[in-house]
Amino acid sequence: MPKIELMRRVLASNDALAAAQRKELDRHGVLGINIMSGPGAGKTSLVERTAEALSRKYRIQVIEGDIQGDLDARRVAAKGVRCIQINTQGACHLDGLMLGPAMGEIDFADLDLLLIENVGNLVCPAEFMLPVHYNVTVISTPEGSDKPVKYQLMFSKSDVIVINKIDLLPHVDFDVAALKKAVRKLRPGITFIEMSAKTGKGVDKWVAWLERRLRDRRKSR
Amino acid sequence: MPKIELMRRVLASNDALAAAQRKELDRHGVLGINIMSGPGAGKTSLVERTAEALSRKYRIQVIEGDIQGDLDARRVAAKGVRCIQINTQGACHLDGLMLGPAMGEIDFADLDLLLIENVGNLVCPAEFMLPVHYNVTVISTPEGSDKPVKYQLMFSKSDVIVINKIDLLPHVDFDVAALKKAVRKLRPGITFIEMSAKTGKGVDKWVAWLERRLRDRRKSR
Repeated sequence: MPKIELMRRVLASNDALAAAQRKELDRHGVLGINIMSGPGAGKTSLVERTAEALSRKYRIQVIEGDIQGDLDARRVAAKGVRCIQINTQGACHLDGLMLGPAMGEIDFADLDLLLIENVGNLVCPAEFMLPVHYNVTVISTPEGSDKPVKYQLMFSKSDVIVINKIDLLPHVDFDVAALKKAVRKLRPGITFIEMSAKTGKGVDKWVAWLERRLRDRRKSR
Repeated sequence: MPKIELMRRVLASNDALAAAQRKELDRHGVLGINIMSGPGAGKTSLVERTAEALSRKYRIQVIEGDIQGDLDARRVAAKGVRCIQINTQGACHLDGLMLGPAMGEIDFADLDLLLIENVGNLVCPAEFMLPVHYNVTVISTPEGSDKPVKYQLMFSKSDVIVINKIDLLPHVDFDVAALKKAVRKLRPGITFIEMSAKTGKGVDKWVAWLERRLRDRRKSR
């Protein structure tokens, strides 16, 4: 009897599509970053801070993934960077198929950095590979340091963990050391960046991490 | 050509199963509550506070939904109420099928209140009806008041919105009036309860809301 392993096939098809899409970035030496987190952890604020710090030195394109609305795209566009809003119309993640039309709109020959802000969700986005070089997960201190135990796939697929809202540390129960320990169990050697996108503290470390990767990409052209 | 509308059929099948499961609650006058939110908004803290306030007056059963681990079930069990942990092993929501084995473990003749804590996710759980009478969504102030615009289905399916972490209001950008206005557009007449599960402020309003429904259920027996 034929057995259709639907989810496995869907994920494999998406991986292949995303890998093909990423070749377009590689051809032009563009750096691609996928930013994931639960709702309200600070993905858009991170994109805003990045635009403020780097938009005069690098050509930046943002893709905003949301189920509905264009609140985030308007915030990002106000920072003077190019931005495309994708509405998933109910879907809980972005994938290669959903990115297709947006990828077709982008002139990669005129670009240095592609920032993709995924749908706010600590579960589903981790299953779908996107055409990027690094996965960044934002965890905010009010969410609690137990999250890596509950959402292992997202943390195990990440290259960088941004610990955001450190300005709230005096007011919440968040154990930075415990979080790092739990994440390192899933992904040894992962990079942590502690910051407050609101106050700006620690944003320089994120920008420095990004600029090192941007320079490496430029060299590869 | 036959057309298989998979998602619509899956959802309809789940609705039918959940409705059948709820009859078991109704037969015994048990009140069922589904608690939803994004990660770290305070669902488990709400369950803990509920157990503290009501476990001497009512027989309470909690079902904890998590992708992995039993952190939440251990927190809840420490409050002296019965608790079953469901691990979804990757799935982003609870549904009737996943609840089946747990429902079979419960003696509804010896129960007043069933609290189901869904997987931490503002998207997927809203699509799957559970065997309950009320859907409660917890939104915490650090997440931002723009969430109803981005996650409309969850808010439109909710009967009560718990605005949690009001102790953090002085430290975050959260517009309570704007949130309420946005939610009322999706669900007119909805109930809002502002609280801090951490400090205990406002928990009495939640407990009073719950006790009114528990008394109504008792009368219906």
